[in-house]
Amino acid sequence: MADTDALVIFTPSGRRGRFPLGTPVLTAARQLGVDLDSVCGGRGICSKCQVQPSFGAFPKHGVTVAEDALSDKNAVEHRYDEKRGLKPGRRLGCQAVVQGDIVIDVPPESQVHKQVVRKAADARPITMDAATRLVMVEVEEPDMHNPTGDAERLQAALATQWGLQNVTIPLPLLADLQGILRKGKWQVTAAVYDDHTDAAPRLLALWPGLFEGPLYGLAVDVGSTTIAAHLCDLNDGHVVASSGIMNPQIRFGEDLMSRVSYAMLNPGGDAEMTSAVREALNDLVTAVAVEAKVDPAQIVESTFVCNPVMHHLLLGFDPIELGQAPFALVTSDAVSLTAPDLGLSALPAQARAYVLPCIAGHVGADAAAVALSEAPHKSDDLVLVVDVGTNAEILLGNKARVLACSSPTGPAFEGAQISSGQRAAPGAIERLEINPDTKEPRFRVIGCDLWSDEDGFDLATATTGITGICGSGIIEAVAEMRMAGLLDPSGLIGSAEQTGTQRCQPDGRTHEYVIHDATPEGGARITVTQGDIRAIQLAKSALYAGARLLMDEFGVDSVDRVVLAGAFGAHISPKHAMVLGMIPDAPLDHVTSAGNAAGTGARIALCNRAARAEVEQLVRQIDKVETAIEPRFQEHFVAANALPHATDPFPELAKVAPLPQVSFNTGGENTGRRRRRRG
Amino acid sequence: MADTDALVIFTPSGRRGRFPLGTPVLTAARQLGVDLDSVCGGRGICSKCQVQPSFGAFPKHGVTVAEDALSDKNAVEHRYDEKRGLKPGRRLGCQAVVQGDIVIDVPPESQVHKQVVRKAADARPITMDAATRLVMVEVEEPDMHNPTGDAERLQAALATQWGLQNVTIPLPLLADLQGILRKGKWQVTAAVYDDHTDAAPRLLALWPGLFEGPLYGLAVDVGSTTIAAHLCDLNDGHVVASSGIMNPQIRFGEDLMSRVSYAMLNPGGDAEMTSAVREALNDLVTAVAVEAKVDPAQIVESTFVCNPVMHHLLLGFDPIELGQAPFALVTSDAVSLTAPDLGLSALPAQARAYVLPCIAGHVGADAAAVALSEAPHKSDDLVLVVDVGTNAEILLGNKARVLACSSPTGPAFEGAQISSGQRAAPGAIERLEINPDTKEPRFRVIGCDLWSDEDGFDLATATTGITGICGSGIIEAVAEMRMAGLLDPSGLIGSAEQTGTQRCQPDGRTHEYVIHDATPEGGARITVTQGDIRAIQLAKSALYAGARLLMDEFGVDSVDRVVLAGAFGAHISPKHAMVLGMIPDAPLDHVTSAGNAAGTGARIALCNRAARAEVEQLVRQIDKVETAIEPRFQEHFVAANALPHATDPFPELAKVAPLPQVSFNTGGENTGRRRRRRG
Repeated sequence: MADTDALVIFTPSGRRGRFPLGTPVLTAARQLGVDLDSVCGGRGICSKCQVQPSFGAFPKHGVTVAEDALSDKNAVEHRYDEKRGLKPGRRLGCQAVVQGDIVIDVPPESQVHKQVVRKAADARPITMDAATRLVMVEVEEPDMHNPTGDAERLQAALATQWGLQNVTIPLPLLADLQGILRKGKWQVTAAVYDDHTDAAPRLLALWPGLFEGPLYGLAVDVGSTTIAAHLCDLNDGHVVASSGIMNPQIRFGEDLMSRVSYAMLNPGGDAEMTSAVREALNDLVTAVAVEAKVDPAQIVESTFVCNPVMHHLLLGFDPIELGQAPFALVTSDAVSLTAPDLGLSALPAQARAYVLPCIAGHVGADAAAVALSEAPHKSDDLVLVVDVGTNAEILLGNKARVLACSSPTGPAFEGAQISSGQRAAPGAIERLEINPDTKEPRFRVIGCDLWSDEDGFDLATATTGITGICGSGIIEAVAEMRMAGLLDPSGLIGSAEQTGTQRCQPDGRTHEYVIHDATPEGGARITVTQGDIRAIQLAKSALYAGARLLMDEFGVDSVDRVVLAGAFGAHISPKHAMVLGMIPDAPLDHVTSAGNAAGTGARIALCNRAARAEVEQLVRQIDKVETAIEPRFQEHFVAANALPHATDPFPELAKVAPLPQVSFNTGGENTGRRRRRRG
Repeated sequence: MADTDALVIFTPSGRRGRFPLGTPVLTAARQLGVDLDSVCGGRGICSKCQVQPSFGAFPKHGVTVAEDALSDKNAVEHRYDEKRGLKPGRRLGCQAVVQGDIVIDVPPESQVHKQVVRKAADARPITMDAATRLVMVEVEEPDMHNPTGDAERLQAALATQWGLQNVTIPLPLLADLQGILRKGKWQVTAAVYDDHTDAAPRLLALWPGLFEGPLYGLAVDVGSTTIAAHLCDLNDGHVVASSGIMNPQIRFGEDLMSRVSYAMLNPGGDAEMTSAVREALNDLVTAVAVEAKVDPAQIVESTFVCNPVMHHLLLGFDPIELGQAPFALVTSDAVSLTAPDLGLSALPAQARAYVLPCIAGHVGADAAAVALSEAPHKSDDLVLVVDVGTNAEILLGNKARVLACSSPTGPAFEGAQISSGQRAAPGAIERLEINPDTKEPRFRVIGCDLWSDEDGFDLATATTGITGICGSGIIEAVAEMRMAGLLDPSGLIGSAEQTGTQRCQPDGRTHEYVIHDATPEGGARITVTQGDIRAIQLAKSALYAGARLLMDEFGVDSVDRVVLAGAFGAHISPKHAMVLGMIPDAPLDHVTSAGNAAGTGARIALCNRAARAEVEQLVRQIDKVETAIEPRFQEHFVAANALPHATDPFPELAKVAPLPQVSFNTGGENTGRRRRRRG
């Protein structure tokens, strides 16, 4: 047996098998199902199948590998080595043939299904398995005696050489086909899209000869306020460029409900908003491609996450049904279409767009993406995932069950409707501490790493000035005021007399806390007013009530851990969030930030087609809780108005941040609830 | 048993079964697989399920039907009868319930799979089975507690109420969905396209409430010279309007090769020609819809047949590869797309277009359609099908094997390149007889039923005049000249002396035959020149050589029958065609005309989706013979120059039209062959 075949062992997979002497390594890998890449299909020109043979004794594998276990480099390998350079020890898997027992390592860059490590330490890595791949084929030339179309011969080549059956060729590619085949002398590289569904694979692009790529995909998070796009290499998943712009729909309304109202009140208003967001997306695509120096023709896929209203406006659906019970979506399923269907003229006409499914009329594809990214359905312990934005999406669950709802927090958490509030931009206060003894604040502004009481702060912020307070700043400010005893549990700001600091000044019938006053120098006066406190209370009550509603539904009074998601979530300190009672009490080290989890979900769906099947199944399994029609939501909302809460105990919080027992209520202020809006 | 169930017998199918008393007739029909229509799904509003119960003794079926074997008309039926009228004896199948043994006739108009009788007596009827059907569904209203999209609930309704699984809803219909569902109060009628492939069914249109249709389809024959469209009712297949226009591509070249040359010599020339034909198609669609008073929104399907060059120019493919060996098609498979893909803005955006498959680079979808219509593959005897146009498509075969080729006859058969030739239009001579004794002609012109020697002819033709000679006229003229001894077998026209008639007059070194001379009155002088004879000889030689080549390939010297197809084929008399040697010798009563068989094939593919599968399989099975590279074609071509033929005997022709043995060759005329062109 040793005379005619040999044992081939692949690492790291450990797959092994006996093959006749003379078998190319690539062939052996394919037959064993080893994950070894190849674009050219074994023609020795793409070099994607590089492997690293090992020689010597391998007691672990029970083999000894002789020096001549692989064939010597042949002419093809030498030529490749001279032209492009092979790393020492590396061989082309399609050229090197087995001559004896051998151990062959497949380096990560030669694997199709690479692992993409995510930033968050506890996050699952993304396994690369993009829907679109590059394959080179040799197409039979036409034969008058056996006439078939060039398209049919290309399809046959894809089937026999790559196992891609019945590849659909869109009309515009058919029109270009003959020229490309002849230019490539019947060798062409095809970008074939083969997704997670039963649909036939689809040709997305065709290049004459060998085209090595890479192909790119775009993961887009269409938020009410900002649109963020990540351009990813579909080969290894790395983000080559990211860019964000304001959602131009803001001119039609700051929050979602005001945009729905705009559509209701203005015939054609939905179409206007659709055009606006699509135009912005085209600008964004162009910007991100320019930044990454990528030819847009190589961007062949895109994924989109968004809340239901953005989802409808992106797809060109009138959102008015989302403005009223029963909040019926046009479609809750994932939508798979071409870039032109979405008006994305900046992408190639054949590029694909995949819009993730929605969970419900108020819980959109963004929440589905968060679920995909944070995977509560795979969690052993009970996890609460809160995606804080203009609207908050909340997930609660574990392996047994996952619940979801959305809660109308409004834009206060983003610094809107706050007297000194502003968007996160240089000059905005983003961190704040109040000395509990002196009641004096110190803060940091965006664009400067120094605290306000450190040397050089004034100089460093001279250009930007200190202009206002952003979303994370206002949360810290309110929480610090509560911890410093400037604010009582009901949310009342004390007077200078009650608090012992002149920074608490009268403001009509209530008080405000002065953080910074540069009016003598012509600068800004930045305060936290009683109105600001009320706005934050409304927002956090909505958030907490949503979470509490899910906990009721789940039948629990506490959760094992909390994940803060959303671009904004990354900036909230868990302690401050808990002091405000934004989230239920939990050990602080069990409260983590997932960053832009929705965007990560979009990226996962871009890089791994199985993840699309997963999220499509997941949204069906998630139990939706509709806050708008749930009477208990209102009860929870009222109870959550206090800081941190009127009735729920916060034992874990008490361990790390005992809150002063103060009360400033002298009957002078109306503490009643205000009207709140979804948005 | 008789107490609880009853025997239900349906005619004409003869299907029978026992059903519990109280079973609606429609339910019984469905369970037995009886072909009984319904759009509303049994709601008693569409009336498509009308049936005719019979009462009394039926010894043939072994039952006696009591008067009360069906329930009395219920309120729904009475209401329908009052509002719309039910024919006497008719019942609504969904309302009438079985109360005893019953015999129920399903009248033709209540059958889905109606038979459409074709004009030609020996043609198979078309069985209606259009890809698109109307179905009414009741969609569940949205429920906040179980949120799904309106689209998903529509899909569920289509699946549960009609067995239509996973219906795809295109984006523009998604955008309209919510409005239509609410307008129809959750009852809507869907046009669902479910073709012969594995592809998921597809929503083409949606109407609120009950929409009774009908839906229409367009069968289009895109010829080099003319484009013809038939608008068909997809319910019963009848042609509601037909219209034809000139192919505007004529301005880029009369024949196919000159259009290919135009594309070769003019960058963008192919796109110009594509725009031209698409524009013309839009005009044609509009015209035919106006003529039939049909809302274009109801035209949901279309089928197209055309030769390969037209096929490419219609689909937007550059045809230059078709101008040179190996004549590679972009695609030979059928192409299924949307109307906008073909630039058909006159059709609804979701309307489907199905372009039949091509057989080879010279044998197009028109020939495939002829094969579908004339079905040589289903013929017991050996049939030669000749589709005569600017290019001739020829099929030869029987159940065992079918061969196909095309032959470059040129436009002579259509009256082009003929000295007095003109297109078929009022004033054109279309029929002609020559008295063998007097050598005097009599003729008929288009627009007048009288012969030229009949009383009133001059008056009847005063308006149009006698302006020229059309395709069928020139064939009759040449054949009559041969039969009258004015033309010898080599094709030479005799002199006045040789023929004994002054109508044979000198024309340079040759002669011409004067049919009509109105020059004294300022009218036309219509003659057949020696050059005309040569043009006809070239055309008919090409046609015969193609047929003969197929016969060689088949290994036969004669065929059992000949079918003349093509719009022009309908006007050629078999005897005259055989005198010219256009077709092989055969008993004259075995030579029939199939009319526009390509157009009929398009209509069959429109009305019956299984026919699409059939033609797609058929084109793969047909053996293609490429005349351009076959040396024997040239030999056959030369031998076929004589009238009827230099060597092949025409015994059947001799029985009915013995040809005078004359010879006018005095060595004065060059009888050499001329250059011929494909086209």
